[in-house]
Amino acid sequence: MQKVINTAILGASGYTGADAIRLALRHPGIELVALTANTHAGKPIDAVFEHFRGYGLPDLVAIEEVDWTAVDCVICALPHGTTQATTKAIRASNPDCVVVDMSADFRLRDTDTYAQWYGIEHGAPELQPEAAYGLTEHNRDAVSRSKIIACPGCFPTAALMALLPPLADGQIAGEDIIIDAKTGISGAGRGLKQGMLFSEAGEGTSPYGVGHHRHMPEIEQELSKAAGAPITIGFTPHLVPMARGELLTCHVRLAGGATADSVREALARRYVDEQFVQVLPAGAVPKTQNVRGSNRVDIAVFADRLPGRAIIIGALDNLVKGSAGQAIQNFNLAFGFDEATALEQVALFP
Amino acid sequence: MQKVINTAILGASGYTGADAIRLALRHPGIELVALTANTHAGKPIDAVFEHFRGYGLPDLVAIEEVDWTAVDCVICALPHGTTQATTKAIRASNPDCVVVDMSADFRLRDTDTYAQWYGIEHGAPELQPEAAYGLTEHNRDAVSRSKIIACPGCFPTAALMALLPPLADGQIAGEDIIIDAKTGISGAGRGLKQGMLFSEAGEGTSPYGVGHHRHMPEIEQELSKAAGAPITIGFTPHLVPMARGELLTCHVRLAGGATADSVREALARRYVDEQFVQVLPAGAVPKTQNVRGSNRVDIAVFADRLPGRAIIIGALDNLVKGSAGQAIQNFNLAFGFDEATALEQVALFP
Amino acid sequence: MQKVINTAILGASGYTGADAIRLALRHPGIELVALTANTHAGKPIDAVFEHFRGYGLPDLVAIEEVDWTAVDCVICALPHGTTQATTKAIRASNPDCVVVDMSADFRLRDTDTYAQWYGIEHGAPELQPEAAYGLTEHNRDAVSRSKIIACPGCFPTAALMALLPPLADGQIAGEDIIIDAKTGISGAGRGLKQGMLFSEAGEGTSPYGVGHHRHMPEIEQELSKAAGAPITIGFTPHLVPMARGELLTCHVRLAGGATADSVREALARRYVDEQFVQVLPAGAVPKTQNVRGSNRVDIAVFADRLPGRAIIIGALDNLVKGSAGQAIQNFNLAFGFDEATALEQVALFP
Amino acid sequence: MQKVINTAILGASGYTGADAIRLALRHPGIELVALTANTHAGKPIDAVFEHFRGYGLPDLVAIEEVDWTAVDCVICALPHGTTQATTKAIRASNPDCVVVDMSADFRLRDTDTYAQWYGIEHGAPELQPEAAYGLTEHNRDAVSRSKIIACPGCFPTAALMALLPPLADGQIAGEDIIIDAKTGISGAGRGLKQGMLFSEAGEGTSPYGVGHHRHMPEIEQELSKAAGAPITIGFTPHLVPMARGELLTCHVRLAGGATADSVREALARRYVDEQFVQVLPAGAVPKTQNVRGSNRVDIAVFADRLPGRAIIIGALDNLVKGSAGQAIQNFNLAFGFDEATALEQVALFP
Repeated sequence: MQKVINTAILGASGYTGADAIRLALRHPGIELVALTANTHAGKPIDAVFEHFRGYGLPDLVAIEEVDWTAVDCVICALPHGTTQATTKAIRASNPDCVVVDMSADFRLRDTDTYAQWYGIEHGAPELQPEAAYGLTEHNRDAVSRSKIIACPGCFPTAALMALLPPLADGQIAGEDIIIDAKTGISGAGRGLKQGMLFSEAGEGTSPYGVGHHRHMPEIEQELSKAAGAPITIGFTPHLVPMARGELLTCHVRLAGGATADSVREALARRYVDEQFVQVLPAGAVPKTQNVRGSNRVDIAVFADRLPGRAIIIGALDNLVKGSAGQAIQNFNLAFGFDEATALEQVALFP
Repeated sequence: MQKVINTAILGASGYTGADAIRLALRHPGIELVALTANTHAGKPIDAVFEHFRGYGLPDLVAIEEVDWTAVDCVICALPHGTTQATTKAIRASNPDCVVVDMSADFRLRDTDTYAQWYGIEHGAPELQPEAAYGLTEHNRDAVSRSKIIACPGCFPTAALMALLPPLADGQIAGEDIIIDAKTGISGAGRGLKQGMLFSEAGEGTSPYGVGHHRHMPEIEQELSKAAGAPITIGFTPHLVPMARGELLTCHVRLAGGATADSVREALARRYVDEQFVQVLPAGAVPKTQNVRGSNRVDIAVFADRLPGRAIIIGALDNLVKGSAGQAIQNFNLAFGFDEATALEQVALFP
Repeated sequence: MQKVINTAILGASGYTGADAIRLALRHPGIELVALTANTHAGKPIDAVFEHFRGYGLPDLVAIEEVDWTAVDCVICALPHGTTQATTKAIRASNPDCVVVDMSADFRLRDTDTYAQWYGIEHGAPELQPEAAYGLTEHNRDAVSRSKIIACPGCFPTAALMALLPPLADGQIAGEDIIIDAKTGISGAGRGLKQGMLFSEAGEGTSPYGVGHHRHMPEIEQELSKAAGAPITIGFTPHLVPMARGELLTCHVRLAGGATADSVREALARRYVDEQFVQVLPAGAVPKTQNVRGSNRVDIAVFADRLPGRAIIIGALDNLVKGSAGQAIQNFNLAFGFDEATALEQVALFP
Repeated sequence: MQKVINTAILGASGYTGADAIRLALRHPGIELVALTANTHAGKPIDAVFEHFRGYGLPDLVAIEEVDWTAVDCVICALPHGTTQATTKAIRASNPDCVVVDMSADFRLRDTDTYAQWYGIEHGAPELQPEAAYGLTEHNRDAVSRSKIIACPGCFPTAALMALLPPLADGQIAGEDIIIDAKTGISGAGRGLKQGMLFSEAGEGTSPYGVGHHRHMPEIEQELSKAAGAPITIGFTPHLVPMARGELLTCHVRLAGGATADSVREALARRYVDEQFVQVLPAGAVPKTQNVRGSNRVDIAVFADRLPGRAIIIGALDNLVKGSAGQAIQNFNLAFGFDEATALEQVALFP
């Protein structure tokens, strides 16, 4: 008999919340018992996402209305800065409830770093040590044991999947890692901003947050851990006119006699048993088109024309492997489901 | 124990073939034993569709290489005019093989009409009477009994789902049905045409095939059957810059005292038990965004400002309910699977 | 010596205002003396439209700050309902100032109709009779004599350019005119609406305002005038994912022995000397791509499969011939410039 | 009296040729006497570009049909490898004819480098020394004196405009220049390639030519000249789903005590009198949207999080400043017109 996990999704009126619902609807072991969206409490889900009409989902409620004692798992898609208090409240009434968090609130181990980059004090420093960093393929043990799973940001997921293995192997240098990122517009969230209107974001490309994007300290934290030494990165994200998708071009310095080929081979070995990671053969290029709607990461390695350098490129869907998909993957791990459950979706191409 | 149907997909290098593969990969009862693409025979599937890399699919072969005796079902995504001969060949070596055809080759009951609109003689007139018209919700009996299932075209699917019930009920007139259609670019297929380049088809809208599109006689055939009298329609398709999706705006004359509300109610009653059809409440509008990647049809009815007229609007994904999804739905029916198997995908939005 | 008209553009932070600035910047006879945007008063223009950086434009001011006595012409891109009071104020201090209005405030001759469709009483009924309806090619005399020029809406411009000549000639019937319109997203303006975000409006098509769009009474007013009898139309607009462009597919009934060919020929004769109107040869299709950024209207006529009917299709750029371009065209007429001044821009394709 | 230059455009059926026509149509000193397109010879221009219908342009002819003695200037949009022979032929019959070439045929001073990167021997090595490298703002003297003007590639234009001044000033190092480029799809030309179909290139981002793009040696040649020492660069271009536009993110190492601010200031000083170059104030980001359809380059400089590094970003329209616009700019210089003639077009936004 199929086990069923009573699950609440918090922040159901945003894109990551919606993608968690989309995936959960196909998960045989998830019963969606509550969907929250405080500014829309009382409305049916199709008032905020029409494509969910007719699936029998519960109406939206305010967070305060959820009875945590009836919830086994909370998938949290709240804005940064609000999840810490919510997690404390959940913990107070139901210590066994697993929180799978897609915000940044529990990603940074150092609460000072959190305060510095997010502009507010950490609201639950006592819980931070419990949080597992949910980069599934690199942290299964902690994820499967923890009751707070801090899913990585979309950019960190792509960056770390591409860079952690060669860095840990000493195949690339820790200095001078330059990450040039391209993201679809959904990465900016559902908030109303003029620059995200179709007429303005369409047919154009532009950088943003140059030199000060909040995903930087998160990437640095994990790279530093892998390298055993502090690492600072360059990171420049760009908005490109597509709804979903993220492509990271990592310009790196080779180390220890490594070549682009040896880096590719090492990545291929590292991920050979990972169903959601694909290291492309030499010459093949990652395209966000090839992972749209799927939980996959595609990674490729190229020799640079600059001697002693290589280019490592990773592509994923920011709303799937970059957030909701990885959240479900971690959910599966935490509750003992096959890790691919509800994530079998092949990329939607064209 | 799960039954497994050995299935071949013919024409695997085009969009409808690809979407059939995408769906079949998630079908627990489909074993893909052959994928054909004559101009690419011998290549791995990822040479033509990179997003299928890593799924363990068989290499592409020429049609002539397929051993039909080892195939229980053929899903056919060949160009119009080539399926008739292929079906004869299949039939000759394996009379039990079920052909689920996505081309137009078996859709028109009248072989003269076929010859007139497709410019070639019908190549298997003796098989035509066997063919079931695969508009699933309207023809389950025939589909489940037939060994040749002629899946409707994408436009006919949307038009007929919207118009058949009110026409059969006498709520709308058979005269003066004006269908103004908008389709995504994938509807033009994967052939190389200048007008379909991103730089040319993007950021623009244009009509095509005005007054002479090949889906006209197919729509007329089924409407005439429902009305019990010959029906001629106006049909004007337009290309809009999106990859997937189709929206049909049907401008119709009300009949027999019907109103927009009564038409909507009748449609809602007709489809109340259909999981892939949704009749929207008054005021809600169909959007192709809400059905992208899913097997759903959304239908809405509006009063027109012109007295005595109404506007019935249907939206679907041309590659799913409009072709490969409906093909899998018919496959499920033909082989006794739950009709929704492999079609549970919720729309990919955003 | 070149004459110079001191011109103010009101509502410079919206799309039609911006396109008026774009065109005015190339007009040798326009001196932009004031740009207003009340919520942005005091800011440089590039705070609201970055592409205007570096052109030496005046800073934004509030309407109240403009000295009308120093202004020869006002190009008005204010929201509906605010232009009437503004025009009265301008008139009070400078009776000679010409108001070229792109809002709907002076388009409807009947102030009750205005009140009914726009939900507010007309604020300057005494000025309404003075207003010339600025469909340039059809109203040059009035436009060149009037001090209030009510530029038509984008949809009415396309509809009337296509339908007025055959209707006035008796080649098409006044009954049963069904206009199915497709518009780019900029038509929805620059206001922040969730449905206009790139991630939501992109890759999708949807109808809106079905049966009750405000451009209906305006189209009906002018068609009725041409026909000498009251005309009611069906009008269904759709949003398609492009920034600019509008395509109207008019499904009409032929009258008086006319054919699609005779309608096309009559249109061609009517517009033979019009540099901004192009009647396409039989078989050619209008595409919004071909008029993007230009002041052109492309019109084509097709025989319908339905006997006795034809399809007349018009395409234009909603921000140019559909608003700011036509405003400049009227400005040229009013001030005695060559009508094409600043409007020579060939379509930007691709 | 206006002087008129009889001008032929060779390769009029491609995108750069078309944009040269678009601009030339507004140039009071250009008379288009011949348009060539060998595979379309004999057709009207609107058979290959519908948006040129109605402008009275000459029909397409084969190159062999052009009488060079009647041509003062040739604007050449032929594929790489064909311009050298053509230029020799032109020279033979009309030594005074000015060739403004948009291909790569005369860009590389070293004919061995040309042979190595383009795979064919240089066909007119004796003419190469005469060719001026047409990066207008940096080479006005040579351009105005030469009869062969080799307009830079689109990527080199953006890269060199951004990097030449700080490199020549010693503000950035010659080592370790990493250019991460994003280009619209029109950059791939009008040839029929599956990957450039709307359904495939849309809604996705991908790198191409990683480590071996042909614009590399051209950028290196000019940077090396400015630095007085051989420079090797890293260059990784990406396709993003927009028709026009190019954004180059140059990750550079600061030198000689320079800072991002000092680099920005130096760039601003260098270009202060250049009407087509805009150095943005600190914090402002270049967007391709802001230069679409215009001849502008926008440049911005940012401090990097990596100590001692900066990020210089340039944006332009690949078909205008990146090819046809710069060609016209050079034409103006060569024939003594105001440099901005026909290039006054403000960006088309939205």
